[in-house]
Amino acid sequence: MRHYEVIHPKTNLRVLSHYEIQQLRNASHGTHDLVRRCCYAVLSAGSLNDSYVEIEREYQDFNIEFQQENRGLVLRLINAPECAFVDGEIIRGIREQLFSVLRDVLYAQDSILRTHRFDLNDSDGITNAVFHMLRNADLLRGDRLPNLVVCWGGHSIPRHEYEYCKEVGYHIGLRGLDIGTGCGPGAMKGPMKGATIGHAKQHLRNGRYIGITEPGIIATEAPNPIVNELVILPDIEKRLEAFVRMAHGIVIFPGGPGTAEELLYLLGILSHPKNRDLPFPVVITGPKETEDYLRSIDSFIAETLGEEARSRYHLVIQDPEKVASLMKKGIQQVRDHRRKQNDAYYFNWSLHIEPVFQMPFDPTHDAMANLELSLDQPRHELAANLRRAFSGIVAGNVKAEGVKRVQEHGPYQLTGDAALMERMDALLETMVAHKRMKLNGEYTPCYRIKR
Amino acid sequence: MRHYEVIHPKTNLRVLSHYEIQQLRNASHGTHDLVRRCCYAVLSAGSLNDSYVEIEREYQDFNIEFQQENRGLVLRLINAPECAFVDGEIIRGIREQLFSVLRDVLYAQDSILRTHRFDLNDSDGITNAVFHMLRNADLLRGDRLPNLVVCWGGHSIPRHEYEYCKEVGYHIGLRGLDIGTGCGPGAMKGPMKGATIGHAKQHLRNGRYIGITEPGIIATEAPNPIVNELVILPDIEKRLEAFVRMAHGIVIFPGGPGTAEELLYLLGILSHPKNRDLPFPVVITGPKETEDYLRSIDSFIAETLGEEARSRYHLVIQDPEKVASLMKKGIQQVRDHRRKQNDAYYFNWSLHIEPVFQMPFDPTHDAMANLELSLDQPRHELAANLRRAFSGIVAGNVKAEGVKRVQEHGPYQLTGDAALMERMDALLETMVAHKRMKLNGEYTPCYRIKR
Amino acid sequence: MRHYEVIHPKTNLRVLSHYEIQQLRNASHGTHDLVRRCCYAVLSAGSLNDSYVEIEREYQDFNIEFQQENRGLVLRLINAPECAFVDGEIIRGIREQLFSVLRDVLYAQDSILRTHRFDLNDSDGITNAVFHMLRNADLLRGDRLPNLVVCWGGHSIPRHEYEYCKEVGYHIGLRGLDIGTGCGPGAMKGPMKGATIGHAKQHLRNGRYIGITEPGIIATEAPNPIVNELVILPDIEKRLEAFVRMAHGIVIFPGGPGTAEELLYLLGILSHPKNRDLPFPVVITGPKETEDYLRSIDSFIAETLGEEARSRYHLVIQDPEKVASLMKKGIQQVRDHRRKQNDAYYFNWSLHIEPVFQMPFDPTHDAMANLELSLDQPRHELAANLRRAFSGIVAGNVKAEGVKRVQEHGPYQLTGDAALMERMDALLETMVAHKRMKLNGEYTPCYRIKR
Amino acid sequence: MRHYEVIHPKTNLRVLSHYEIQQLRNASHGTHDLVRRCCYAVLSAGSLNDSYVEIEREYQDFNIEFQQENRGLVLRLINAPECAFVDGEIIRGIREQLFSVLRDVLYAQDSILRTHRFDLNDSDGITNAVFHMLRNADLLRGDRLPNLVVCWGGHSIPRHEYEYCKEVGYHIGLRGLDIGTGCGPGAMKGPMKGATIGHAKQHLRNGRYIGITEPGIIATEAPNPIVNELVILPDIEKRLEAFVRMAHGIVIFPGGPGTAEELLYLLGILSHPKNRDLPFPVVITGPKETEDYLRSIDSFIAETLGEEARSRYHLVIQDPEKVASLMKKGIQQVRDHRRKQNDAYYFNWSLHIEPVFQMPFDPTHDAMANLELSLDQPRHELAANLRRAFSGIVAGNVKAEGVKRVQEHGPYQLTGDAALMERMDALLETMVAHKRMKLNGEYTPCYRIKR
Repeated sequence: MRHYEVIHPKTNLRVLSHYEIQQLRNASHGTHDLVRRCCYAVLSAGSLNDSYVEIEREYQDFNIEFQQENRGLVLRLINAPECAFVDGEIIRGIREQLFSVLRDVLYAQDSILRTHRFDLNDSDGITNAVFHMLRNADLLRGDRLPNLVVCWGGHSIPRHEYEYCKEVGYHIGLRGLDIGTGCGPGAMKGPMKGATIGHAKQHLRNGRYIGITEPGIIATEAPNPIVNELVILPDIEKRLEAFVRMAHGIVIFPGGPGTAEELLYLLGILSHPKNRDLPFPVVITGPKETEDYLRSIDSFIAETLGEEARSRYHLVIQDPEKVASLMKKGIQQVRDHRRKQNDAYYFNWSLHIEPVFQMPFDPTHDAMANLELSLDQPRHELAANLRRAFSGIVAGNVKAEGVKRVQEHGPYQLTGDAALMERMDALLETMVAHKRMKLNGEYTPCYRIKR
Repeated sequence: MRHYEVIHPKTNLRVLSHYEIQQLRNASHGTHDLVRRCCYAVLSAGSLNDSYVEIEREYQDFNIEFQQENRGLVLRLINAPECAFVDGEIIRGIREQLFSVLRDVLYAQDSILRTHRFDLNDSDGITNAVFHMLRNADLLRGDRLPNLVVCWGGHSIPRHEYEYCKEVGYHIGLRGLDIGTGCGPGAMKGPMKGATIGHAKQHLRNGRYIGITEPGIIATEAPNPIVNELVILPDIEKRLEAFVRMAHGIVIFPGGPGTAEELLYLLGILSHPKNRDLPFPVVITGPKETEDYLRSIDSFIAETLGEEARSRYHLVIQDPEKVASLMKKGIQQVRDHRRKQNDAYYFNWSLHIEPVFQMPFDPTHDAMANLELSLDQPRHELAANLRRAFSGIVAGNVKAEGVKRVQEHGPYQLTGDAALMERMDALLETMVAHKRMKLNGEYTPCYRIKR
Repeated sequence: MRHYEVIHPKTNLRVLSHYEIQQLRNASHGTHDLVRRCCYAVLSAGSLNDSYVEIEREYQDFNIEFQQENRGLVLRLINAPECAFVDGEIIRGIREQLFSVLRDVLYAQDSILRTHRFDLNDSDGITNAVFHMLRNADLLRGDRLPNLVVCWGGHSIPRHEYEYCKEVGYHIGLRGLDIGTGCGPGAMKGPMKGATIGHAKQHLRNGRYIGITEPGIIATEAPNPIVNELVILPDIEKRLEAFVRMAHGIVIFPGGPGTAEELLYLLGILSHPKNRDLPFPVVITGPKETEDYLRSIDSFIAETLGEEARSRYHLVIQDPEKVASLMKKGIQQVRDHRRKQNDAYYFNWSLHIEPVFQMPFDPTHDAMANLELSLDQPRHELAANLRRAFSGIVAGNVKAEGVKRVQEHGPYQLTGDAALMERMDALLETMVAHKRMKLNGEYTPCYRIKR
Repeated sequence: MRHYEVIHPKTNLRVLSHYEIQQLRNASHGTHDLVRRCCYAVLSAGSLNDSYVEIEREYQDFNIEFQQENRGLVLRLINAPECAFVDGEIIRGIREQLFSVLRDVLYAQDSILRTHRFDLNDSDGITNAVFHMLRNADLLRGDRLPNLVVCWGGHSIPRHEYEYCKEVGYHIGLRGLDIGTGCGPGAMKGPMKGATIGHAKQHLRNGRYIGITEPGIIATEAPNPIVNELVILPDIEKRLEAFVRMAHGIVIFPGGPGTAEELLYLLGILSHPKNRDLPFPVVITGPKETEDYLRSIDSFIAETLGEEARSRYHLVIQDPEKVASLMKKGIQQVRDHRRKQNDAYYFNWSLHIEPVFQMPFDPTHDAMANLELSLDQPRHELAANLRRAFSGIVAGNVKAEGVKRVQEHGPYQLTGDAALMERMDALLETMVAHKRMKLNGEYTPCYRIKR
């Protein structure tokens, strides 16, 4: 028996042209499949499953159809997950996210990837493409002062860490700041829930809860319905660039390899000489139970990227108010700096990002094996290569393509400097020990460190 | 050292006349004192102290002054509690509540109590006065469909009950319903926090979090800053009438004598023959740990007010979704009924309330001793008298005047029917045993049951 | 055949209590009649008839009934004038004005006149009453900068004067300023129409078109539907006080005795020593055809109130842009002054008004005959007495009570100083000659000057 | 001496990317010149000059520069026309239109013309391109019911016709309908001014005043500042398609060859068999002085396109209320039809437009000479060819390229059927006689009819 739900848009729907509806309907066309996959992720937000394989099975029965009516596009959902509905009505946060998916996938496919307006092999071209995708999603607002705190951290975290994230979010919200995250569960959901309460106490009705994601990760990190501005970038590198160009400050909670990837990306960029004088508040924080874990990451940074990189962040243990206060003060400096430089408040054009951080990295077994993992290279290149290594591990853990590759060819092989390999091995072991690799069940590593 | 804070209004401030500012400033005038007391309560919202005496001590140093500026009234706070500020700036929820206090106290003093527009010894006169006070606070909105769920319950509750209240609030908010409470902590705060998250997921930005209070109770049940519509009625009876005429449904969580007072008031009214056909959804609910306690209240109702009264509510144990669903369905019936009868959506004019429930009851020792507590009287009168008995106990526990009286004259004496006294005694003992009498410390009863 | 129309409120309706609906329905009660009369005036806005007697005849068949429904009050109009409807639907400007009438009449009757909150024999009491009535009509906005230009002038003016008023209004609107008038036709409607176009070019969607009237004059000066904020004060003196306390600047176009009354009132107040340093821009202006007429008024002022009074206004002939520019600059000074003095932007508390300008003047034949009309008295008293003389002539021309009195007892007798009487006679003759006494037909004077 | 003005955006500014700012700044690039030309037209809105040559001379000194600041793009205007400013500040209607120009020119150049997303040689491709340009300008609103009346007519009309257009606009506005025009003076400005007053009486604050133009005509038909939604299509054919796909009804006032072009385009489409059953209210109207002129056009239609075409419009002489009423009723039918067919309210996808009406026509002397002007061809092709002939005459009269061609090569030669040529000649002579060819001065024909 097939179950139908018809979804009318409520707000903000961009009306679609016949041309676009045609693209959506054309099943042979990749667009339809991408939309279907992302919509399914959005509809599954309530579920706490990060097993790619299981999600895949349930996904087979699901479909989505498109129909034009007098007031715009109507979606027809077939066998949508129950958790998206309350008393038979779709949750509005989810409803709006479905339309965001359509908007972003269509725009990226049509205006960015296919039309060759931007040279995607060029650093400026990529940055402009990211800007256009964010603007198309209406995320770049000329009327707002700098106030966006991006929060990174694990999607698979224990209760006390989740409560800590909420508490930090609460104090951020109480200071009138908005939240952006990768929009999955755990450290991505906690700060939004906390900020919601903080905003409510400040009677702020226009708080922004921004989710920035990409098709490869959305399935396992489905956006929380609180997310009221969702954007889907085409790949992980553009998603990371979107984060750092939109953020006015970043808070990093304990996480696994995905969080490590983000941290290495950020510090690799911030430690570039051209970014030295750019104010950019960063705080690494967690509850007291995570102190050891955070200190081991802190040491890893110091021993690999050096003290320069380390000086770009504060390490704060168990002090939510201090985290929020540091963000507020840091963002005030960002605002002063941008005004002085006549820089945009809504997009950090001045941040210098080397192409090595922008070019998409596809973690094949060859690419992983060939990564230059040696302490004997410029710091930002080391950061970029480490970032790729962790990116590959994330893929091997939870992304469709990566999981399949590992099933087929066995774990990735990582080789390099003995000194560096030792430190990496130690860090990864700590992650396994702290259960930061996977939500449920025992973890089988998708990588092998060869010293 | 005196500490000053100057508070400018941000929104919705009613501009004041010289006449009103004069009233506020005139210290000999009762208005100033009432305003000062209520403002202090609002500013203390963060504190978790329900000891009237301690609050009193801290209160001595506090003062509030009024000054007119070009855009309206400015408040000057002297020695305001720290917890009302974040990084030196007042929390906006609190800021707006301060101005609500001014509005309501001035209006009640000036337009209701002093001018004799309404005959406050007459049932219709009282109801109209309540209407005018609610309207003056802009709480009666012709543009809203029925969707207000009033939540009652203890301000002093254990963690798991608080979590349960939040969960119920969450499911209510997820259904797009608004929340009204007595605006203190515990079962009054939990549903609002929960509903805030529910509303956020539904992307509802105009959720209403209504607090209805009175000067005698506000000190110990300070409004949560989430409350975005606050009204202060002049006495407990008008507050109760405001609750039942505004509510489209009521949820009752476990509580102490205050909650018992509310429940007896509600059932005394609903079981009146004239209200028999009026739809009015009521649910008594709590987590499974409270099942015994709730069943003992349920029995007390059955044995005193009878099965008719009992038939007016559902008893739901540990099922937040069911509570929210019952409210939603029940409110749909209220809406249909009002439309059919051409009744206002925003004020339940049709609800019949006997004068015995409306006339202010001042719990002196004499008045308490003379309460007619016998099973041998009409049900609604019994309900009214039981309501008064519990009202007196609340006063003796936490209200300024009541606490003083008990300190001076010893516990209240309650006499009556042996059968009834036995049941009352049992219920009160259960309340003591379940620690529902006071937030902290051991409880010394303020009453004595004489069988 | 009786014709029914049912009017539902669309916005801003204050929900009404049973108590108020009772007052409205009670036909024996003066409130009903007052409401009926004012509503009829509002509904007749399109008509260009200022003959009190004819309007009266048509008015007999009209009635209005009140009924409560689920979303608030509903009006039932019986035999309402056709011109209030477009394709069978009431014009929304008119719809909202009907509800403003209810609001103001009820409030004035109930909260100001009957309850004795304010001492209406005392200067401060009257000022506070005016403030409360304006605030109840939501006209006092703490969130607006000073920008209200009040325009006075004749309701009965030739086409070219009307076009000039529109042109002035256009340039005022183009400068982002709002308009307030006595809300009738002619020089009251023109500036609003002009400002509407000016605001449209500035894409200002929240322009204010304020009408300030009173029950005696509303019948012959029905509010234009453009008026989006209407207030009805109880008498002419309170209406005049509302004008001068709300205005940030005043423009006076050519008019008849009503305009003379306003001008004398304004200059009598502004020339008081206590108001000497108060910035208050005033411009008297008209097209070149009216130059002689305006100069004769200018001379009358100089010869009666003196050069001091004359120095408080600019006389501008045929230069709409200059008028608007003078207002803009003058209002900037008002703003600076209020900020420096911590005065309210929305109500000119600092303006000193002598009681002689505030106490209601009832133009009986005796009262008119006994007016002290002599040059040999303090200037502000002379202004006050002249104001009353013109007020009586307005009443004799177009107000219900006045017209009846003159029909019964013949023209008013005005006596006084020969010198003053001569000047008054000359001015009145000029008004008759310029057809500024009446909209249509030949004019029979309602007064006799006895030298 | 060069005069600078710096313009900050106030609302709705789309923030721009470096990529776009680069395009704007690059002078060698056609984009900069197009933007400069259109901006100059917007800034000249107040001027009443349609002499292309004179405008050109003043235009030489004008320039516009672009600069990014913290809140977005800033424009720097050099030697902008005085009439765009009030007391030194730019009129906001004009300010917003400047940013609309940027938006549309950038989008059209970048996303439509250069990227080849749409096949502009294909009928569907063109329609989709028009849709995307309108959507990018935020003109397609899923939340509005059908209510757009497009008004066409001459930009050079006498006073009484202008007043008539205003009166029609007033009655349209009073019925809550919005206005779209070609956004120049005359019959394009009048209806907007009238509707503004109508909307004000209905207290409609969100009225739409839509201007649809193209770079070739904007210089001589500068948008009125009342226009609050402006879109610039790349050529006349796409502009015409935008008109007919957005309009829910069309009113045609007396005009010259431009209006004839529009009328022929519309009737050529509406008389196509596929559009026979599509409701589409059309009214041709004018004051009584224009009756003869309108009847001669009516006859021309009957004699060339036949009675079928004639049956698609009403001819209404001197009856503004009737015009508005016909529009309202007709649009109700459009709404019913769209709902029944599940067609979009905001874009008339169902309207069939033959490619012959969509392909850009460049009026070279050859192209004009080769037009197939014979009665012996299918009606819709005849309409298309006649449309082109009038389009060429408009170009020869007022468009840059056309004026230059005629200066160089002499008048266009038009040949064809004797019968048809005779009728065309008669119609054109009538236009000359009625002074519908040019705003000022004597008219020298830019065409020659060869029979």
